[in-house]
Amino acid sequence: MIPLVADLTTAVGEPYGPYVHRGATSQDILDTATMLVASRALEPVLADLARTERALARQAAVHRDTPMPGRTLTQQAVPTTFGLKAAGWRSLVLDARDRIIRVRETLPVQLGGAAGTLAAFEAYGARSATALTEAYAREAGLAAPSLPWHTLRTPIADLAGALAFAAGTLGKIGEDVLTLSRTEIGEVAEGSGGGSSAMPHKANPVRSTLLAAAARRAPQLAATLYGCVAAGDERPAGAWHAEWEPLRELLRLTGGAARDAAGLAEGLSVNAEAMRRNLDLTRGLIVSERLSAVLAPRLGRARAKELLTDLARRAHAEGRPLSELLTEEAELKDMDLATLTGPAHYTGFAGVLTDRALERR
Amino acid sequence: MIPLVADLTTAVGEPYGPYVHRGATSQDILDTATMLVASRALEPVLADLARTERALARQAAVHRDTPMPGRTLTQQAVPTTFGLKAAGWRSLVLDARDRIIRVRETLPVQLGGAAGTLAAFEAYGARSATALTEAYAREAGLAAPSLPWHTLRTPIADLAGALAFAAGTLGKIGEDVLTLSRTEIGEVAEGSGGGSSAMPHKANPVRSTLLAAAARRAPQLAATLYGCVAAGDERPAGAWHAEWEPLRELLRLTGGAARDAAGLAEGLSVNAEAMRRNLDLTRGLIVSERLSAVLAPRLGRARAKELLTDLARRAHAEGRPLSELLTEEAELKDMDLATLTGPAHYTGFAGVLTDRALERR
Amino acid sequence: MIPLVADLTTAVGEPYGPYVHRGATSQDILDTATMLVASRALEPVLADLARTERALARQAAVHRDTPMPGRTLTQQAVPTTFGLKAAGWRSLVLDARDRIIRVRETLPVQLGGAAGTLAAFEAYGARSATALTEAYAREAGLAAPSLPWHTLRTPIADLAGALAFAAGTLGKIGEDVLTLSRTEIGEVAEGSGGGSSAMPHKANPVRSTLLAAAARRAPQLAATLYGCVAAGDERPAGAWHAEWEPLRELLRLTGGAARDAAGLAEGLSVNAEAMRRNLDLTRGLIVSERLSAVLAPRLGRARAKELLTDLARRAHAEGRPLSELLTEEAELKDMDLATLTGPAHYTGFAGVLTDRALERR
Amino acid sequence: MIPLVADLTTAVGEPYGPYVHRGATSQDILDTATMLVASRALEPVLADLARTERALARQAAVHRDTPMPGRTLTQQAVPTTFGLKAAGWRSLVLDARDRIIRVRETLPVQLGGAAGTLAAFEAYGARSATALTEAYAREAGLAAPSLPWHTLRTPIADLAGALAFAAGTLGKIGEDVLTLSRTEIGEVAEGSGGGSSAMPHKANPVRSTLLAAAARRAPQLAATLYGCVAAGDERPAGAWHAEWEPLRELLRLTGGAARDAAGLAEGLSVNAEAMRRNLDLTRGLIVSERLSAVLAPRLGRARAKELLTDLARRAHAEGRPLSELLTEEAELKDMDLATLTGPAHYTGFAGVLTDRALERR
Repeated sequence: MIPLVADLTTAVGEPYGPYVHRGATSQDILDTATMLVASRALEPVLADLARTERALARQAAVHRDTPMPGRTLTQQAVPTTFGLKAAGWRSLVLDARDRIIRVRETLPVQLGGAAGTLAAFEAYGARSATALTEAYAREAGLAAPSLPWHTLRTPIADLAGALAFAAGTLGKIGEDVLTLSRTEIGEVAEGSGGGSSAMPHKANPVRSTLLAAAARRAPQLAATLYGCVAAGDERPAGAWHAEWEPLRELLRLTGGAARDAAGLAEGLSVNAEAMRRNLDLTRGLIVSERLSAVLAPRLGRARAKELLTDLARRAHAEGRPLSELLTEEAELKDMDLATLTGPAHYTGFAGVLTDRALERR
Repeated sequence: MIPLVADLTTAVGEPYGPYVHRGATSQDILDTATMLVASRALEPVLADLARTERALARQAAVHRDTPMPGRTLTQQAVPTTFGLKAAGWRSLVLDARDRIIRVRETLPVQLGGAAGTLAAFEAYGARSATALTEAYAREAGLAAPSLPWHTLRTPIADLAGALAFAAGTLGKIGEDVLTLSRTEIGEVAEGSGGGSSAMPHKANPVRSTLLAAAARRAPQLAATLYGCVAAGDERPAGAWHAEWEPLRELLRLTGGAARDAAGLAEGLSVNAEAMRRNLDLTRGLIVSERLSAVLAPRLGRARAKELLTDLARRAHAEGRPLSELLTEEAELKDMDLATLTGPAHYTGFAGVLTDRALERR
Repeated sequence: MIPLVADLTTAVGEPYGPYVHRGATSQDILDTATMLVASRALEPVLADLARTERALARQAAVHRDTPMPGRTLTQQAVPTTFGLKAAGWRSLVLDARDRIIRVRETLPVQLGGAAGTLAAFEAYGARSATALTEAYAREAGLAAPSLPWHTLRTPIADLAGALAFAAGTLGKIGEDVLTLSRTEIGEVAEGSGGGSSAMPHKANPVRSTLLAAAARRAPQLAATLYGCVAAGDERPAGAWHAEWEPLRELLRLTGGAARDAAGLAEGLSVNAEAMRRNLDLTRGLIVSERLSAVLAPRLGRARAKELLTDLARRAHAEGRPLSELLTEEAELKDMDLATLTGPAHYTGFAGVLTDRALERR
Repeated sequence: MIPLVADLTTAVGEPYGPYVHRGATSQDILDTATMLVASRALEPVLADLARTERALARQAAVHRDTPMPGRTLTQQAVPTTFGLKAAGWRSLVLDARDRIIRVRETLPVQLGGAAGTLAAFEAYGARSATALTEAYAREAGLAAPSLPWHTLRTPIADLAGALAFAAGTLGKIGEDVLTLSRTEIGEVAEGSGGGSSAMPHKANPVRSTLLAAAARRAPQLAATLYGCVAAGDERPAGAWHAEWEPLRELLRLTGGAARDAAGLAEGLSVNAEAMRRNLDLTRGLIVSERLSAVLAPRLGRARAKELLTDLARRAHAEGRPLSELLTEEAELKDMDLATLTGPAHYTGFAGVLTDRALERR
């Protein structure tokens, strides 16, 4: 530090020189700088999250009633809609936004002197523990902390949590897009995929790949920062120094992910036809839950289940649609089987859930 | 799941049997149960954090003006007070409390059915996506979510962050107590340390050891949970299942840490005499920062620094107190060196910072 | 500890009582017990890994020449074989086995006394630092360490690494099975999937789900253990205590994963027909790399690329197979396009790579 | 990639141009480059570990019989020697060295083509799956893998484990030096500590601080890499990309730590007088374990314990040395209490353990 102090003293010249490194400790300067960097780095993150949520809101509205297979444990379960899916993604983005805003508003300056007592400032003539810190905070555009926080690392931990959460939520979107854009599924595509020089047919989902990669890294970076909360003494030997790169990397990573998510959401191409085609892959079994519900009161719960299990087996073995097999059942002759077995008619409250989710701003 | 459903159906008997596992999916039940467990587990955590902060407030008030060495990078730097230290610990505990309360108030029930559309409920006759969820939330004493959150894991991530933060803050207290209770430092002692059967003189700081251990484990448990935010599809194959033990363990770990912290804070024995003795270990050099501040205007910054560096070297080499060496300096004859070099007189704004911190409730 | 010592002394009775807790410290006993537990817990892990590799070896041999789509960044790239895929999985399992065996063979007893000097044993009359430890190691069936390792945690770190690696490799298999058993892909299925009570058509890939979940948790458990290598003093305050649950959990998790992997590998059902069908999904584009290689010398690299990019676009837009479009190109009239565009003919060295991999024992 | 390929083609000129990006996939090049970087980066790590272990061997030999307090759970327990401590540090460094060497020797080239089948090489005329890879490995000075390892990430995981272990072991040394160089303990000092511009008496243990910081970060970087072992398909969408920065950072971090450790070990100043002084802090209680051992046969185990507990209490309360109190006990009149209570005489087998540890090369 000593050479830096001398250099800086020379650089600022008279009459400011004597004030360089006077009263404050190096950590005061570095922590304040870190908070400034964080505050500024979160600005584009928030802007990109806003772009992302707007694009997802559009997708959710447009595809409010676009049916697609709902998938659980990798298997088609019952239908859902792409609108509800996009609305869910958006709600995560809004959650991330809220958490980042909340942290950003409280990022404090650091000012404590050698051991957090502001003693040197008093020796140099300061009369109040608060006035100086508040003036400093105003200048820096940051919050004034109630105590020097050299080893009270709440702001760092809060950043860690908000950033890891944001990276995770964007990772969820990335994972879903990766799955839905698989060659065999093809329900969505990144607008401008990465080309392959050797395989001209390939359009790699590069943005969602980067989102997935960020979500794999962010939690452990946050863990390191949470681990540094247990910082000993008035300034720790290691716990502070271990924060620097992980926090920088976490900001960088989340910043990149937010930008990629915005591009992904804005460019996402949705293939409603592929969704419709995939809904038919199970030959109607995707609505077996509905049939259970409708047939149980009519046939009794046990008989309904037995019948459906049997028909499911036959639909699979004989390669015939469930609706066709059902029409052969005497017990069900008078039912509107076409409507009952149409996947597009079994999306439950997806539409109203989507509407309600989109009301959130 | 199937045997469990049958068992439960039998167990509840008529007329409830048909309602077992009707419309809801297993994850609805498990996630809701998890939120109930979390909500209940956080109750004693909050109670123990309250005990902790009250005990620390007492310590901070009692020792508002008890000087002790401030330590940075393991070395005595300048004096501080035990009051400020305890007030800092308490502010972390309050931060943890605030974060836990904030999360706890929003813990939601889960209700979405097979793919989050509540479709089976509709098939069974539900008219509204919200009424059922709200009634369920009222019954459970939890919040009603705006969307089913099978793969929108905000509540889990929020728990992870709050718990890792709480464990970290208690770990900070533990680290400090471990250091201060070292045989060679002896400034504090756990009230009821762990005895050693073979070494009757030893009183192991067992509670702070457990706090330190918890702080080493919690961040990685939280990282696993943050990693599960990137949960694919409508229900993930692995990302949900990987949450179970880490969340349970994190609750258990933080619960134990909060209980240990309360016991530690309430039983902590503070040895002001040892603090005073340790303040003298550097032969007055612990106030060299103050001397820099006072001598610089008188001697010029460069000359002041040169003089102090020289005297520091001599104090160390000759084993003489700095105050004594200073009296031999002609330039300083007229100064009140006793006050200037008394560590207890150089605690800066520690007192008022403590007062202000204690105003926070 | 004191009550336990008294209890144990009573329990063993005369003349053994006086030897209870004599010379050894609690950590001697606990660390040795941990090594015994680890050694025993690794036995079924190794047995299950052996079952897994044998089953995978069978799959690799049977499907040595079964073509399937190779997938990169989620997109079909070029063909591969299921044999090569299974051989790759097996090579990971063998790598895991080798690492576990290597660690297991070196698991040491712990014997150091209060601070690792074996001083109390000397006080009680021991003549040699090594003889006692070696006798103890023989009794325990563990290795004799060259030094007491109270804070030299190599064995724990080695276990952490081997177990995290094993969990990761099984997680790789799980991820692949999850993808390949997606409803839309259907190339493999777990023999005995988890049934769904509400959706009789669903067969959840439960074992691969558990493998994926284990792989999400193990790395962070290992991280905690690696973090505990930095254990201070002669016995640490926290770093040792933080090892207990993570190591136990990591053994448990890897044990469960190995058992699930064995069941998965032995029961895995492979659908070569689905693989073949999926190979046709890109209308021949999956072999465009080969066409590049073959056409470049004939047409020049630039022209070949231009032609293929154009045909790829048309194949997609017009829904026609690439082979058909190629036959319309005058430049290519004399080529054996059927062979060139057959995916099953473009598996490179997959067969011989599989053979060679299977030679490893 | 495409522009890069074109640029590189131009750059290499004729007749090499057509061979650029022919057969190999980008991951072949990047993974091979990563292995080259790792191999080269480990060279200075090994050199610095060698410097470290040599310096520690010297310290251990010089201080073979220098008694110092053994500390457990932060409390002085029984004496040990600085020689044994340094020998323990060295054995960890040798363990780290062995693990790094083992990994380094097996770092493989990557060559598999688009999906690991080497198909394009065959299309371009290659006759053998092994010859090309082996030639490539010879050129690169790396090992030839038995299979392409695009998603068989053993080498990355092995690097992660070895590096995290190395960082942890150096962190252990750092933690110990930080503790021993505390102002109140002063048993060791870094040769060239970091000066403080404001506090001329302070010599910060900067190298051990950096070691401690590295040990806090490395485990989570390794966790991310272990997590990437579960890499799906023939090339993963995210799991590969998430490896890049963490591996680079882990190499950088361990490299820095090894260099700092070498400087620390070579410059470490050991204060045997302070160790001796600290041994007296407990007024002889540090050898109470020995007294238990010696008095138990004479007085009976229970009476011995009772007596020692009582004397320990009195030694503490009355501020008198244990040896003095013991001479007042009639039962012990004929014993050589001076030798029995001398801490320097109760270092057990520390000397021979040190000798044996130093035999390891």
